[in-house]
Amino acid sequence: MDVTIIGTGNMARGVGRRVLAGGHQLTVVGKDEERARAVADDLKDAAGDGEIRTATSGDPLEGDVVVLAVYYPDARGAVERYRDQLAGKTVVDITNPVNDSVDALVVPPDGSASRELSQLAPDARLVKAFNTTFANTLTAGEVAGQPLDVLIAGDDSEAKEAVATLARDGGLNPIDAGSLERARELEALGLLHMTLQGALGTGYASTVKILA
Amino acid sequence: MDVTIIGTGNMARGVGRRVLAGGHQLTVVGKDEERARAVADDLKDAAGDGEIRTATSGDPLEGDVVVLAVYYPDARGAVERYRDQLAGKTVVDITNPVNDSVDALVVPPDGSASRELSQLAPDARLVKAFNTTFANTLTAGEVAGQPLDVLIAGDDSEAKEAVATLARDGGLNPIDAGSLERARELEALGLLHMTLQGALGTGYASTVKILA
Repeated sequence: MDVTIIGTGNMARGVGRRVLAGGHQLTVVGKDEERARAVADDLKDAAGDGEIRTATSGDPLEGDVVVLAVYYPDARGAVERYRDQLAGKTVVDITNPVNDSVDALVVPPDGSASRELSQLAPDARLVKAFNTTFANTLTAGEVAGQPLDVLIAGDDSEAKEAVATLARDGGLNPIDAGSLERARELEALGLLHMTLQGALGTGYASTVKILA
Repeated sequence: MDVTIIGTGNMARGVGRRVLAGGHQLTVVGKDEERARAVADDLKDAAGDGEIRTATSGDPLEGDVVVLAVYYPDARGAVERYRDQLAGKTVVDITNPVNDSVDALVVPPDGSASRELSQLAPDARLVKAFNTTFANTLTAGEVAGQPLDVLIAGDDSEAKEAVATLARDGGLNPIDAGSLERARELEALGLLHMTLQGALGTGYASTVKILA
């Protein structure tokens, strides 16, 4: 698949590395070329013979899958800016819309960031995923010898399957978490997992795993 | 500790077994003596030389810790009925307040079952726990060789520590999930875990584990 990641932070690096590990093509979109290039350089060792493309905000969006690897307010901005181009594409919302003190969510309590984003770009095939997996664990691909669980919610089965394929190809364990309504519970879990880092002392290196 | 469990279903059996495994005393309260006795008989092998006491609704509540091992509507009823007796006691809310189709919660979206119960019995030292651990996994005490994580939320540190001690003594791994406000996220996780059973095919035998 041809995957575009918007964002140049740790989550762009984490998700990007798994995309490349699965043998898929990657384009990194940054606010400027320098930041996008820095991500591409960091991921170069995972690209094999392939080239990691870079682009800057405003360039036409490549690919079938677009990952919004930015904080929630910036994800809103990106969805508004690219609304027309996102129509028909699989758009992955990885956000945890936390407040500044990271102890509550800023979205309506009966909604989710995903629902808000889908209202801004109703023709995008929105999928919630990767919001319960921390960046460093995505870079490693596993925690304690176990592949990460990637909980995936969305209303479009094909779009969800595309994200599941990316996760699986990258060595992760995709789990279908149901419709986009379930993004509410995934974001609650994302918040919970973040708030537990203090008590656990795990420094954002833990993962939530469903064992059976 | 002297622990009273209100309820005679699978969760009463699951939590009861871990209480006994930790060497603590147990009283089972049922709607009638027969049901309470059936739980006590099922757990007899875990009680060692100790006796499992039984009681029926309306009897005075024994012990320092009271576990509401019933569905949410019945937990409301129990808290209303026993309000005066629950004052000062550690009261454990294990409920997942799901609707009939098990795809949403029936409590206010910005609240939780725990908050509702604490408003009905403000002098109880309410603790949310065991709502993310299924009954059968509590009975076994582990899944895939890993001790269950027991996420514990509450505003009273001593009450939380009492529940953590019960979990630890019973071979489980207690995790302090913060204030009672966090019950909202714990209930979201409980709902999510239940809704995943279909996709995972795990038949309520899975557990949510934080790996690091």
